[in-house]
Amino acid sequence: MSADRGPERQQQERRERGLVLGAMHFYPGGEHATSWRLPGAQPERYLDVDYYADFARTAERGGFATIFLADELYVWDRFASGVEHVVNVRTEPFTLLGALSQLTERIGLAATVSTTYHEPYHVARKLASLDFLSQGRAAWNLVTSAADEEARNFGAGTHLAHADRYRRAGEFVQVVRGLWDSWDDDAFTYDKGSGFFARAEKLHVLGHHGEFFDVRGPLNIARPPQGHPVLFQAGASPAGRALAAANADAVFTPWEHDLGAAQRLYADYAARTSAAGRDPRELLVLPALSPVLGRTPAEAVEKLELIESLTPDRVALDLLSHHLEVDLSDRPLDEPFTHDFSGGTNQVQSLYATVQELVGEGRRTLRDVYRTLLRRRFLPGTPAQVADHMQERFTRGAADGFMLAFSSLPEGIEEFVDTVVPELRRRGVYRGEYRGETLRENLGLDVPSSRWTQVSA
Amino acid sequence: MSADRGPERQQQERRERGLVLGAMHFYPGGEHATSWRLPGAQPERYLDVDYYADFARTAERGGFATIFLADELYVWDRFASGVEHVVNVRTEPFTLLGALSQLTERIGLAATVSTTYHEPYHVARKLASLDFLSQGRAAWNLVTSAADEEARNFGAGTHLAHADRYRRAGEFVQVVRGLWDSWDDDAFTYDKGSGFFARAEKLHVLGHHGEFFDVRGPLNIARPPQGHPVLFQAGASPAGRALAAANADAVFTPWEHDLGAAQRLYADYAARTSAAGRDPRELLVLPALSPVLGRTPAEAVEKLELIESLTPDRVALDLLSHHLEVDLSDRPLDEPFTHDFSGGTNQVQSLYATVQELVGEGRRTLRDVYRTLLRRRFLPGTPAQVADHMQERFTRGAADGFMLAFSSLPEGIEEFVDTVVPELRRRGVYRGEYRGETLRENLGLDVPSSRWTQVSA
Repeated sequence: MSADRGPERQQQERRERGLVLGAMHFYPGGEHATSWRLPGAQPERYLDVDYYADFARTAERGGFATIFLADELYVWDRFASGVEHVVNVRTEPFTLLGALSQLTERIGLAATVSTTYHEPYHVARKLASLDFLSQGRAAWNLVTSAADEEARNFGAGTHLAHADRYRRAGEFVQVVRGLWDSWDDDAFTYDKGSGFFARAEKLHVLGHHGEFFDVRGPLNIARPPQGHPVLFQAGASPAGRALAAANADAVFTPWEHDLGAAQRLYADYAARTSAAGRDPRELLVLPALSPVLGRTPAEAVEKLELIESLTPDRVALDLLSHHLEVDLSDRPLDEPFTHDFSGGTNQVQSLYATVQELVGEGRRTLRDVYRTLLRRRFLPGTPAQVADHMQERFTRGAADGFMLAFSSLPEGIEEFVDTVVPELRRRGVYRGEYRGETLRENLGLDVPSSRWTQVSA
Repeated sequence: MSADRGPERQQQERRERGLVLGAMHFYPGGEHATSWRLPGAQPERYLDVDYYADFARTAERGGFATIFLADELYVWDRFASGVEHVVNVRTEPFTLLGALSQLTERIGLAATVSTTYHEPYHVARKLASLDFLSQGRAAWNLVTSAADEEARNFGAGTHLAHADRYRRAGEFVQVVRGLWDSWDDDAFTYDKGSGFFARAEKLHVLGHHGEFFDVRGPLNIARPPQGHPVLFQAGASPAGRALAAANADAVFTPWEHDLGAAQRLYADYAARTSAAGRDPRELLVLPALSPVLGRTPAEAVEKLELIESLTPDRVALDLLSHHLEVDLSDRPLDEPFTHDFSGGTNQVQSLYATVQELVGEGRRTLRDVYRTLLRRRFLPGTPAQVADHMQERFTRGAADGFMLAFSSLPEGIEEFVDTVVPELRRRGVYRGEYRGETLRENLGLDVPSSRWTQVSA
């Protein structure tokens, strides 16, 4: 963005853009490991392109800026309960987004990319290709992989140390962006008469030699329609926040129950982005939000209780065992629980910290820790209550929008679009329609200049 | 295929299936580095999904079993002429095939996979996903990468030695196929009542530890609709032929001008397939064929001369320099040419052997070598002449079908479907319609059993 925009102009732009909404899923049935058991779930459709097309088209009907398909590179078979009760099959997201690019018109198409187990040349090509196929709607959510199960599918015994995987991620982004700048926008002349397809002086060799990657380039595809496809990031540890502040276009943050905590997190990202030499408005802060809608507050709470009741004890225990990297299966569920957290974790640090906070000084039972962990992720309420919450977070400096992770699919997104979206539009905090052609335009973000182009004032 | 089919039954099945046709391109404008200069070429559409959808739909209209998108992982910038005159931009083929899976109905969707610079876990997922998206139409053409430019995009200085890359390719296929067998077909119960999504005893850990790969598995997607997506292979060196004989469902062979040579090549594949313990009918032999169609023989030859005339001398020389790994740019084009072939090559061995044969004892000029190399790849003729050729090769044991690499696109495939296809159908050697739902069915190939399933008699 140009440097001459003052804070007032920025606030005005933000109001004009309104809330930015995305629709995601990690599990195809919704935001819990056993959401596939809910009455409206359609587990037999989880490898069916129409299931995902329905999801994307519903999000598009609601004017969402983007869908986002979370991803992992393994079967969670650390415990038998994972194989038996949890959805472990998923479509490779970029192949799927290629298909969805032809089944949607306006919505952004985002998926997870592990920077730990991919090569930047492949990723740069794939994203540039998706950006052409979708005419400027491609995005990626950069993650670092943190499960030993993934390492073992790629020739390693254990996953990379936390600090190493974030350094690798930072270098990965630089290489991918450098590759996208290989060809100037006016490199191609297609001149049949002279025989010049392209001009050699408008092709640039990256020549990257770094700690993790040696990549010469150039990339064998033109600069994408968006310049650089949109970069999302979701790491919540200090290293993750720093990576987002330096590089990302939007960050998916954990949802904070408490408004003050959400405001502090928002301010922290703004400060880090400024410290990284960027305008804080260049990084959208989008908390994850999992609404559980009911016609009455009581009905919403009942739905949440149903989700909880459909989780076998064994799955709950094994999920906690996974986060803590110990086997809790012989521990009684209903006695106070303690754990030694002094060793830390090399898995997801922010999740570990949340569990540590819940376990606290050992006054909760295992069942209580697990239930609280589950319930904390969801916001039960009526459409008006959920809209209240979103409006407050947006107007009081705690969110630029939300990444919606519905508790049950497909019905969760259909209900939301039919009930909460009209409410938000009535209140004037959400446009619910597309302003531009590309995802960048719909997010209010400029097209980045090529590193080889003189930046104009 | 079951073991009780005798040779007569096999011949009958082959006649009933008729010619198997595929439509490929390496360069999006057609089968020559400068085909984009031809009058009907549309170079400004080469990153446009509709361009490829038109290609696939025309092939589908002609009843082709498959399209095939060839691929490379670099910009050919070894010489400036490559950047300036040759098409160096292409869409990442699997993202594109994801899109095309929704824009086509019946045709197979195949693309090149380099086993040198990919990880088998990613490739197994991508192909399984494409097989689900297309309802059983996915295929891959396994290649080993042979250009130093590619190595330098993936952290290496030079490409792997020929023997190493073929050993890696063989192991790659075993790992990918093993991953596809991770889940039994009846593993998924989706039982909301009991909470069992899948049965743990129907999930298999691959646990592969080999020379090039350590891959534990399991794969996080169900067994594909085709069991194993169709495997094509095109290596023509002895190592390439051995790999195809042991593993492939179809092999793309170089086109031989001479019928006897084509019959010998066909017989060689049959013998190698038998020696590998397989029924020779399990490996379809599909020579590459590049027809140049004219209403009269003279018009076809004129078209071929036009292709030749649109190749700048500099490009011709640089292509030969590339194959021979020397810089020929200061050599006179019109004086007899010699080269010391004693060192061999670590690039494409079959192509090197062809150049060696052409250069022979040094009586040809450089220009003559290049032109002969170019002309050898094309079959100019009327639709009836081209049909004659195809019919003869099919009925006289030299081909099961053809991988058509049109000299100019899009017009080459349109002309072929409009003129040669009806001619072949009239003659009863080509059905021109789909017999089955999946690519395997349309190729007359059985679904492979899982390695974990007892094979029934």
